[in-house]
Amino acid sequence: MDRRSFLKTSALGGSAAAASTLAAPAYAQGKRTLTMVTTWGRGLAGVHDAAQYCADAITAITDGQVTVDLKAAGELVGAFEVFDAVSSGQADMYHAVDYYFLGQHPALSFFSQVPFGMTFQEYANWFHHAGGRELADELYSIFGLKCFPAGNTGPQAGGWYRKEINGPEDFQGLKFRMPGQGGQVMGKLGASVQNLPGAEVYQALASGAIDGTEWIGPWADEKAGFFEITKFYYTAGFHEPGPNLNMTMNLDVYESLTPSQQAAVEQATGACNVWNMAQFMANNGAALQRLQANGVQVLEFPDSVWDAFGQAAEEVIAEPMDDEIYKKCYDSYMASLKASAGWNSRSQAVFTAQRDRIASL
Amino acid sequence: MDRRSFLKTSALGGSAAAASTLAAPAYAQGKRTLTMVTTWGRGLAGVHDAAQYCADAITAITDGQVTVDLKAAGELVGAFEVFDAVSSGQADMYHAVDYYFLGQHPALSFFSQVPFGMTFQEYANWFHHAGGRELADELYSIFGLKCFPAGNTGPQAGGWYRKEINGPEDFQGLKFRMPGQGGQVMGKLGASVQNLPGAEVYQALASGAIDGTEWIGPWADEKAGFFEITKFYYTAGFHEPGPNLNMTMNLDVYESLTPSQQAAVEQATGACNVWNMAQFMANNGAALQRLQANGVQVLEFPDSVWDAFGQAAEEVIAEPMDDEIYKKCYDSYMASLKASAGWNSRSQAVFTAQRDRIASL
Repeated sequence: MDRRSFLKTSALGGSAAAASTLAAPAYAQGKRTLTMVTTWGRGLAGVHDAAQYCADAITAITDGQVTVDLKAAGELVGAFEVFDAVSSGQADMYHAVDYYFLGQHPALSFFSQVPFGMTFQEYANWFHHAGGRELADELYSIFGLKCFPAGNTGPQAGGWYRKEINGPEDFQGLKFRMPGQGGQVMGKLGASVQNLPGAEVYQALASGAIDGTEWIGPWADEKAGFFEITKFYYTAGFHEPGPNLNMTMNLDVYESLTPSQQAAVEQATGACNVWNMAQFMANNGAALQRLQANGVQVLEFPDSVWDAFGQAAEEVIAEPMDDEIYKKCYDSYMASLKASAGWNSRSQAVFTAQRDRIASL
Repeated sequence: MDRRSFLKTSALGGSAAAASTLAAPAYAQGKRTLTMVTTWGRGLAGVHDAAQYCADAITAITDGQVTVDLKAAGELVGAFEVFDAVSSGQADMYHAVDYYFLGQHPALSFFSQVPFGMTFQEYANWFHHAGGRELADELYSIFGLKCFPAGNTGPQAGGWYRKEINGPEDFQGLKFRMPGQGGQVMGKLGASVQNLPGAEVYQALASGAIDGTEWIGPWADEKAGFFEITKFYYTAGFHEPGPNLNMTMNLDVYESLTPSQQAAVEQATGACNVWNMAQFMANNGAALQRLQANGVQVLEFPDSVWDAFGQAAEEVIAEPMDDEIYKKCYDSYMASLKASAGWNSRSQAVFTAQRDRIASL
């Protein structure tokens, strides 16, 4: 779907236009409270922490002139309703990973995660220095929104399996939990993909209703207790090498802020971005050591499986390509990835492999 | 040297104490201008940009209540005088990479770069979530300072050589430019290490006064023109896998800020940190492609050379270990590195290697 036909057919086109009338208070009015909704349950480690960081930092920097009131999933609107709620002006901002909203626009995958896509560092390259921000502004403005990178889980684990995976044929008929484009890739390999809410995954794996699941990474996976059921843990995955979390504001609300308040939003979310990535990386390291001490086997998919993932991912990513904005984002994203990957693989990757070999890390 | 003997013997101990009397203006006084000095020449790509980002962001967020006046190297004090200038209260803050000041305290290496040490992501883990910040506060407060991570060049290239390196014996008598602990490592391999100012390096390499040099990475190295002299480029280096740049404030000045101004400093530098790392990563990728198009050969040191670097680095890092704070920083730094490296190598490293193989990146 192209931008014009999207705006014509979407109910959101209308409500976003209406919001511009509602949300234009003079910014001289003094203290104001903005409501942030999220896709995260209150206290959910890492992701809710990132939302809290943004809320607290914006409130602190502005000395309470902009006080952010954080509502967890379900407290004002449901987890998957936050995009519409902020687009329509019902809430002022949300914190989420935007592949939950691919039904609103497929190009949101580039600003959250594409399978075989960018890591945290590569996304920062693209967003800040290679055209990503300008495309985000174009895409999100369709919905009356403006997004800011505001967190990252780092690479997500390949997942937990009840048996070892020796080749792509092992996915035939496998009942596996994975959301988003990653799940579509698994489906192309013959898996029966299920998208269970988090609270149901442990029981489904324990009962055999599913044969495997991905979740987040060692820190969150350990809390979820999957190692009590199976010991086969594929740490490297193809599906989410560095999912970007956005704090996304209603565009009219953003534009009603003073320039210094707008700068506060930009800098607070930017600082949160690296703080939150590091939170996952630091906790994942320690959790992986504990999981291994509990008998978990760290496994790697064979090349034949990676190849099958790669081919299926290419097909999945190509599917929405007749949408004009999706195609523009894809071209820009891939050009940036190609330009930066060469330097990374010839410097950081070589260094860390040599260091870890020599120091036995 | 321990903390007490350092304070007794250092001229800085006295001037820092004097500064606490000078720099305690009531923060209700309204607009103030703070002076930032740097180790960077005005306009120096990447590093001066990071200093400018911090100055502009703090000024913007505070609506000019704290206006930061940026002075490049030599405009107020010389590049290597900024640490003393801010410690004594002559300037309010500096932007630098703190291995320039190892003469003040050897533990500053942990907050800039240790050979075979942390990448950008690993440093963020340690600083924000594994004790680094608390140790930084302890170390920098000796000098009346408080540091904030505020930029990173990403991995620095191994350097330019006039001939290929086939084994550790090739360093015997090699005249090589490399500063800091990395240079000490090269010296242990038998190199004649020179620490030339940036402006003299090109001519020294061209005339044969030196046999090789490291600089920063493809973006800066291309500007420096070394590819006009030699085509042998070792992209992965042991010496600076992710040097952290700090914006460091005079502690009394920092404490005289309002809580919201302090939050502005924290968030502006945090956002700068990821923005600047990405600036280097994005520009390095494109520059490496251009260098290769110009006939530059990208080479990798053989394992025997990495092993020799590793052994020499271990010796160099161990040398200041009888200093109490250095030892505390070392233990904390290594524990964090060991905990996070395992997860990185088993997730992100495997993923990027597979992706780059499959997509021919």
